[in-house]
Amino acid sequence: MKLQLALDGGLRPSLDVLRAAAESIDIAEIGTPLIYREGMLAVRELRAAFPKLTLLADLKIMDAGEEEARIAFDAGADIVTVLGVTNDSTVRGAVAAARAAGKAIMIDMMQVADLVERGQALVAMGCNLLCVHTAYDLQRDGHSPLAHLTMLREAMPQAQLAVAGGISLETIDAIVRLSPAVVVVGSAITRADDPAAMARALHDRLVTIEGRR
Amino acid sequence: MKLQLALDGGLRPSLDVLRAAAESIDIAEIGTPLIYREGMLAVRELRAAFPKLTLLADLKIMDAGEEEARIAFDAGADIVTVLGVTNDSTVRGAVAAARAAGKAIMIDMMQVADLVERGQALVAMGCNLLCVHTAYDLQRDGHSPLAHLTMLREAMPQAQLAVAGGISLETIDAIVRLSPAVVVVGSAITRADDPAAMARALHDRLVTIEGRR
Repeated sequence: MKLQLALDGGLRPSLDVLRAAAESIDIAEIGTPLIYREGMLAVRELRAAFPKLTLLADLKIMDAGEEEARIAFDAGADIVTVLGVTNDSTVRGAVAAARAAGKAIMIDMMQVADLVERGQALVAMGCNLLCVHTAYDLQRDGHSPLAHLTMLREAMPQAQLAVAGGISLETIDAIVRLSPAVVVVGSAITRADDPAAMARALHDRLVTIEGRR
Repeated sequence: MKLQLALDGGLRPSLDVLRAAAESIDIAEIGTPLIYREGMLAVRELRAAFPKLTLLADLKIMDAGEEEARIAFDAGADIVTVLGVTNDSTVRGAVAAARAAGKAIMIDMMQVADLVERGQALVAMGCNLLCVHTAYDLQRDGHSPLAHLTMLREAMPQAQLAVAGGISLETIDAIVRLSPAVVVVGSAITRADDPAAMARALHDRLVTIEGRR
């Protein structure tokens, strides 16, 4: 089980948080707002600062799958996200770009109507990870990704699942019990008083609960 | 009727094409791949080079509507795109950001299941323009946006519609007859032997057909 840190703020503060918390982080995510602000400069700077860390570029690709995924792989990303609601040709193009680069595609399942049916089709097309994701704009209404993660885990016991959306020290245990491959945490670390300590605490939770299984 | 030039290539070539074709262009689009590569630097450079031109940032927002739209408005964009398939809270957030800035939201209707029902809901939420868009990855299979544009125009005769997806001198007439507010053209101009002449020819078609109505 891996801990992914979503970096959505400015480039300098993101680098600072990552430097502080890096020893507890398995995957650093260059978040969509950070990509909108800085483009691939953000990927290149994180790659330069952390040559061996797994980097995910949260492009949320909707079209031109091969061309757009390649932009991020060329810049140094190891994983690129594609929206599960997009068309199959775009998914296949992104998967082709990932295979050509020896890298991976994570699907963001936001707004997918039938999670299980679409999830199975996406895995059949060669997508590496399916991310159950409660939109930021829906978190304040009390939504959480737990119900969707449960549904997908039951239907696809072997799938590599990721989970994102407001996860914190208070909510991580129930999520970890469903054995996602990746747990994505953003503001619970980046806005913590002590991001390094919070990342360590979250990482310890992953290791402890995984060890008990 | 306005002609929007979609710029998806590198920043320097995009600036060169726009400089050559600017007198025929009403809206310059900083395309999604260009945003992925350069971030808001691309918006700022186009704004500096063309202080009075309407600029559209094709963010295709899926989450964090208010925060992400604001990134592009702050950088100098006049119009920001949001995906029609996203959740209503994200749409409302982006509309709020547009209103606060005195600017506009265009919805990209790609992958929307019920174009008319969703289109009416999006206009009711305050979205300014609905863009019927055939994905780049579907154009090679012979798809075009004409059928969807016809459907939406019949159901929403007063709506401000935009249309995008492989439009060229060969296909523009049938589209223009449906009175879209914005016609988006990309590679037909950017990859033309003479982009300025092609932009002029397309713009003339818009003016001529509009004048006949």
